[in-house]
Amino acid sequence: MSDADTERLAARVREGDLRLYELEEHADADTAVAARRLLVEEASGAELETTGEYAFPAEMATGTNVENMVGAVQVPVGVVGPVTIDGGALSGERHVPMATTEGALLASVNRGCSALNTAGGASARVLKNRMTRAPVFRVDGVVEAEALASWTRDNVEALRAVAEATTNHGELREVRPYAVGNNVYLRFAYDTKDAMGMNMATIATEAACEVVEDETGAELVALSGNLCSDKKPAAVNAVEGRGRTVAADVTVPRETVRETLKTTPEAVAEVNTRKNLVGSAKAGSLGFNAHVANAVAAVFLATGQDAAQVVEGANAITTAEVVAGDAPSRTVDRNGAAESGVGPDGDAPDGDAPDGDGAAAGRGGDLYVSVTLASLEVGTVGGGTKLPTQAEALDVLGVRGGGDPAGSNADALAEAVAVTALAGELSLLSALASRNLSSAHAELGR
Amino acid sequence: MSDADTERLAARVREGDLRLYELEEHADADTAVAARRLLVEEASGAELETTGEYAFPAEMATGTNVENMVGAVQVPVGVVGPVTIDGGALSGERHVPMATTEGALLASVNRGCSALNTAGGASARVLKNRMTRAPVFRVDGVVEAEALASWTRDNVEALRAVAEATTNHGELREVRPYAVGNNVYLRFAYDTKDAMGMNMATIATEAACEVVEDETGAELVALSGNLCSDKKPAAVNAVEGRGRTVAADVTVPRETVRETLKTTPEAVAEVNTRKNLVGSAKAGSLGFNAHVANAVAAVFLATGQDAAQVVEGANAITTAEVVAGDAPSRTVDRNGAAESGVGPDGDAPDGDAPDGDGAAAGRGGDLYVSVTLASLEVGTVGGGTKLPTQAEALDVLGVRGGGDPAGSNADALAEAVAVTALAGELSLLSALASRNLSSAHAELGR
Amino acid sequence: MSDADTERLAARVREGDLRLYELEEHADADTAVAARRLLVEEASGAELETTGEYAFPAEMATGTNVENMVGAVQVPVGVVGPVTIDGGALSGERHVPMATTEGALLASVNRGCSALNTAGGASARVLKNRMTRAPVFRVDGVVEAEALASWTRDNVEALRAVAEATTNHGELREVRPYAVGNNVYLRFAYDTKDAMGMNMATIATEAACEVVEDETGAELVALSGNLCSDKKPAAVNAVEGRGRTVAADVTVPRETVRETLKTTPEAVAEVNTRKNLVGSAKAGSLGFNAHVANAVAAVFLATGQDAAQVVEGANAITTAEVVAGDAPSRTVDRNGAAESGVGPDGDAPDGDAPDGDGAAAGRGGDLYVSVTLASLEVGTVGGGTKLPTQAEALDVLGVRGGGDPAGSNADALAEAVAVTALAGELSLLSALASRNLSSAHAELGR
Amino acid sequence: MSDADTERLAARVREGDLRLYELEEHADADTAVAARRLLVEEASGAELETTGEYAFPAEMATGTNVENMVGAVQVPVGVVGPVTIDGGALSGERHVPMATTEGALLASVNRGCSALNTAGGASARVLKNRMTRAPVFRVDGVVEAEALASWTRDNVEALRAVAEATTNHGELREVRPYAVGNNVYLRFAYDTKDAMGMNMATIATEAACEVVEDETGAELVALSGNLCSDKKPAAVNAVEGRGRTVAADVTVPRETVRETLKTTPEAVAEVNTRKNLVGSAKAGSLGFNAHVANAVAAVFLATGQDAAQVVEGANAITTAEVVAGDAPSRTVDRNGAAESGVGPDGDAPDGDAPDGDGAAAGRGGDLYVSVTLASLEVGTVGGGTKLPTQAEALDVLGVRGGGDPAGSNADALAEAVAVTALAGELSLLSALASRNLSSAHAELGR
Repeated sequence: MSDADTERLAARVREGDLRLYELEEHADADTAVAARRLLVEEASGAELETTGEYAFPAEMATGTNVENMVGAVQVPVGVVGPVTIDGGALSGERHVPMATTEGALLASVNRGCSALNTAGGASARVLKNRMTRAPVFRVDGVVEAEALASWTRDNVEALRAVAEATTNHGELREVRPYAVGNNVYLRFAYDTKDAMGMNMATIATEAACEVVEDETGAELVALSGNLCSDKKPAAVNAVEGRGRTVAADVTVPRETVRETLKTTPEAVAEVNTRKNLVGSAKAGSLGFNAHVANAVAAVFLATGQDAAQVVEGANAITTAEVVAGDAPSRTVDRNGAAESGVGPDGDAPDGDAPDGDGAAAGRGGDLYVSVTLASLEVGTVGGGTKLPTQAEALDVLGVRGGGDPAGSNADALAEAVAVTALAGELSLLSALASRNLSSAHAELGR
Repeated sequence: MSDADTERLAARVREGDLRLYELEEHADADTAVAARRLLVEEASGAELETTGEYAFPAEMATGTNVENMVGAVQVPVGVVGPVTIDGGALSGERHVPMATTEGALLASVNRGCSALNTAGGASARVLKNRMTRAPVFRVDGVVEAEALASWTRDNVEALRAVAEATTNHGELREVRPYAVGNNVYLRFAYDTKDAMGMNMATIATEAACEVVEDETGAELVALSGNLCSDKKPAAVNAVEGRGRTVAADVTVPRETVRETLKTTPEAVAEVNTRKNLVGSAKAGSLGFNAHVANAVAAVFLATGQDAAQVVEGANAITTAEVVAGDAPSRTVDRNGAAESGVGPDGDAPDGDAPDGDGAAAGRGGDLYVSVTLASLEVGTVGGGTKLPTQAEALDVLGVRGGGDPAGSNADALAEAVAVTALAGELSLLSALASRNLSSAHAELGR
Repeated sequence: MSDADTERLAARVREGDLRLYELEEHADADTAVAARRLLVEEASGAELETTGEYAFPAEMATGTNVENMVGAVQVPVGVVGPVTIDGGALSGERHVPMATTEGALLASVNRGCSALNTAGGASARVLKNRMTRAPVFRVDGVVEAEALASWTRDNVEALRAVAEATTNHGELREVRPYAVGNNVYLRFAYDTKDAMGMNMATIATEAACEVVEDETGAELVALSGNLCSDKKPAAVNAVEGRGRTVAADVTVPRETVRETLKTTPEAVAEVNTRKNLVGSAKAGSLGFNAHVANAVAAVFLATGQDAAQVVEGANAITTAEVVAGDAPSRTVDRNGAAESGVGPDGDAPDGDAPDGDGAAAGRGGDLYVSVTLASLEVGTVGGGTKLPTQAEALDVLGVRGGGDPAGSNADALAEAVAVTALAGELSLLSALASRNLSSAHAELGR
Repeated sequence: MSDADTERLAARVREGDLRLYELEEHADADTAVAARRLLVEEASGAELETTGEYAFPAEMATGTNVENMVGAVQVPVGVVGPVTIDGGALSGERHVPMATTEGALLASVNRGCSALNTAGGASARVLKNRMTRAPVFRVDGVVEAEALASWTRDNVEALRAVAEATTNHGELREVRPYAVGNNVYLRFAYDTKDAMGMNMATIATEAACEVVEDETGAELVALSGNLCSDKKPAAVNAVEGRGRTVAADVTVPRETVRETLKTTPEAVAEVNTRKNLVGSAKAGSLGFNAHVANAVAAVFLATGQDAAQVVEGANAITTAEVVAGDAPSRTVDRNGAAESGVGPDGDAPDGDAPDGDGAAAGRGGDLYVSVTLASLEVGTVGGGTKLPTQAEALDVLGVRGGGDPAGSNADALAEAVAVTALAGELSLLSALASRNLSSAHAELGR
């Protein structure tokens, strides 16, 4: 593009010949973006110089990722780790890229990663994988609602055939009807493999909706009836899951808690109970964690996920408890690592506590921490994942593009997020336990 | 920086002489970032070329916005509008910058903006402004919990003096005690002016906590007890608000709904009821909207807000109803715009419907739509707002830095987000009403 | 019993020879109850004369319904109706017995029944029938949690065999695993036929738990892990249902709304939207209704249901909308009733409102109201249903004891409750719409 | 009444001369009730003999407690205790009357009372006292909503004057505005003293609403806008409270846990965490307890409370933890009781656990359990409290009628419910911990 081309294109908008969103039809993408930026600068008095210094061809984004593009926002990216992950889809050591503007976050998560590594790494597993879309139909009344619910249960196969015909990869796993008066919501649940899958689920469900309308008296009101539920803080996601339900955990030796995290297993467990469990309970929350959303947001941003789905990503529960230090350490054991954490005082003396927890606490138990994310919506293909900086971040994790078997890369990304969140929880809970949250912010904050 | 400097620095890490997070102590920020990027490339096999092409001095971000920096992620930014806003803090026409990788979003919101403009623009108001921090204290039992709650109610002034001594701008507005067994949560609520305010609130609250501990038998367990509630989907935020509670609305003439939005007021109202209200109700949701999080996330990302706080940003309720077309249109009226929307059939004929709604519906009423965001946490100073691309986006809105009076810029940003969300709701509800959601995605999506 | 026997028995307690709960082992039930009452009178200074005038043999209750019995509380019972019900299990006219001490309730519900009858009666359907019990197991960590979830999905048949062996009637329909860290909750869902089923579900699930423990490494922590969820206000019940999910609806002719309910369909629909939908949304509620709990509590009390399960009974959504008055009225139509409501102006004139709703509103539409109770736990055998007054109330409804087919009586009871709740909603919404709530209370209240 | 009078009255209904609800206008109450019962028997084929054997004059109930009365339901009442209560309003030993049809409940609670007594009794405190009513107003839009919210904050005194003029006892304590689009909800909060207060709050609020309408452009849509929130499971109640917020707790010596409850403090604490906290979290619950609703329902029923308000009564959080056995036992200490629980091994040996909890656990700590009910709505005057059997039950507790000072009897009743709930939690958690839930039901159940 040349300045003259840009100016000529901008002039056409000023003259009313073109509209701001039509520029890409009349010039190459970069020229269109430059002309639009010029016009917005004129209208607002702002200078958008840095916004214009994006490092990828505009045509990679216009039309598929954004409209009315004027440039790019640049968000600092750092890494935490490497952290050792024992996942179902992702195993080994990984640096995790995180994009954020909130100081202290990466330092905190990184400290958590150190603790995880000292414990032999974190375990992670995808527990469920279902992208959902729930259209709402209007029927005559409750009699017809009951009939449609029954019909749906009897015709899942027919709906599957139609839905799956729209997609190369997606598989319909379940259709669950919910009726409220003369409304019927059908929650379609798909395995969308390495795609986050909202688009795939929407298209497949639309096809199925036509069958519903053709075969029954129901009339489609909206392809999304909010029982999906996308980008809203909803119990249906927290309870039943959406996207990946994924969990990570670790047993941190008492000594590591003391030396790396500067606190005790008891103090961390207490903070978790009083803050994450009881505090969240009193708050009427669907999120029983300290700051899982921070990890979700930062990894999402770095890897081209949909930032608005951080909402559901926050539906997470963190647990922490003191466990017997003389029992074989769980994670360590699974990894065959050598650290035993068993000392001479390893015997559980108290017959009243058959589960060992009580004994563990008093004699110097270890710290078990888990985080379970009910509805983490991730993909390694489509959306923002193919933009250069985002694709590079996926490469850092080794999960770019479609996995083999299909879905394994998205599973791996989910596990990476879960472990990152676990590191963040472990670190912040420990910081709170040793009362240094505020001073950490004061030093590292803005 | 030179390649040689970078290589030398990286070598020291390889040799175990330095740790990955210590590089900034031994070189300028850009060299440190380059060396770290090199090391991560080596460890992962990824190429991070584009990640390294950031367009701002690394030292702007390292230490305040991010640690362990390796570069920046670039997210496409576009604009919607200009949209006419009649706000309490922001009035006039504005382009709104939005950063996203989700195709179709800006096109959809932009269509909504067109409809808003045809209606004379949208109104917006900040209803509440409170950043909260809620430490949790342990007391001996319920007797002491009751005593601490009483003490707190009697000593708000003393707590205010100590808390406000830590800040130049913040004002403590309320301290509300919540007791659960031997836990007491004190929810401190501040006016943090143009800052989002989490940091300010944390530091001020920590000072107040010392007074609580000194004067009572209570022991601080955690500076945040999750009744704040930060970055979690919690009812306390949805009910009582956090950050800004802000609302926007518009009355769209029937003709605009038909021509711009390709549907009818009745159909939009029905979709809103069956999807956003009843569907969300059945989903156990705290978000009764279509996709407010999309607008929140995209403006947050463009303007340097905390992406993890999109979580609370999704606590929004959208309402839609058919209103009398022959009554003076509300928004239009307030702006003194000329369109009346009154036709020859403007008389309400039905005495049974004193509120006019019923009459309106049948005779061709207009469409009233509102969106109310309970807990939108925004700031125009601090955090990511001072990074170049983000600051430019704030300039586009005219809300960069501290406002005059203090807080007015953050109020204005909140109103801009609310209007953007309103445009998005209007557009998506209309699209659903005319059943083109899926096809819009098919054309514009990935 | 004689006074002397009573006194002798009481003396043994005073002397420390017996404990208060052991009396039934040493005398007939009525004497034991009398002696205990005497002792409580002495200890408290209260006179329990009326409490002692119960009208059933104490042995009917001691040991199965209550321990430490001292008599009975007497709660006034009235009837509403008869109301015409078109249900899946209950059809025809019924008086509905309601026990309450809250004045104005029956009068209000009765007015609603009148309106229902004028509309040709209410429809009702049971949408789902699942009593649940969800034990919680402890496993080593997330790896084992995933394994247990998988194992459960693969072994539902084995669990069913064991569970169903413990019951003559119950059928296990589903086992759904939910994992959180090292906790796994298995939500067992049963068809318990005419029994409310908590006891049956608990016993069957306990048997299944033994299999889980034997076959896997999981350890049972508690037979109920609160994902059941019994007697708690939980989204899992509101979303997925518990006991019966049951709905009722009606289309009330505009004229009836005016004459019987003293308001308009538009006003009722508006109240429902602003109060039951938007108000409940803002309240962070799982109940989107006006006072469904009143109907549930009063019928539960009259018919011997578990009063504590009123909690889940309140998980109900009420919808109200104006529908085309010129369309054949739905409920009426299904019943073959003669009232058509079709007038000479029956044509829908507005092409913009293909669904007819808009047109309906303007031309004098009718009022559609529905109520859907997500988790109504009822039974017609067991518990309090066999006590005389309660059994008589079941007889009034014609649903006493085991139904044919099994479950049909409990279904019918659920439908009766739903219709009663519908009448209550219709009446209260109408009262609010005509602003006479407070004055109604003033006249009829305490 | 005579059979002839009854028959004559019934005949007039059969002949269409009278309607079923008009009988009290044409005969004394008992005759009217008898005639109505006769008619219902004829219509249903049921025999209502026992229902007719109520032991109080019908005129005590007709017109104030019930309409269309046909008799009374009789629910078995037993007592638990005596239990030692150290409350703010209720101190000493009390038997607690409970009405239920669910076998095993009283036995279970009674066992809990024994454990409480061995621990020196339970503490209880009312933390908050506010009955609320929240009307919803319609305004033009968000501009006017903001204006009304501001107006309300500036005019609380004027609203108080008008509201309090309607009541002898009630005091308006707070009016809190909540806006959603063009809806404004004003949550009026009253101290209603010994009355449960719904009626008082409704009447007072109605008067205040007239001022709001007169002074502003707002139009009242409904006197209750569901932000109250009455008889619905709503977060606003769980977070902010309604009626009494009341808590009870106890520290049970390890030995008592072992001997009376047949388990260990560690096991109880574990069950509480995995079931009541984590399980409820996963369930999306507002109730984090085992079965608080059972205690609430049974005491409510016995003492004439509104059974439908069991719904809000279930908004309760139970906590359990192991505390240092060598520290002076809290409750015991406060009561000056002699049991110390301190043994020779009383020193906390582990410097890592400054809070002593960890140490306690290992060396044989005690069990601290609390239950906090956020929204318990109780009264000792009005409603069902004046009926004979209910009044007798209040006498057993010593809390009948208006207290001195006003409100103290209702506070005392709230504390009695809380302690009863605490006993129930302690007992059921212990039963689960020792795995005998199912067998207890099998023995005692129906």
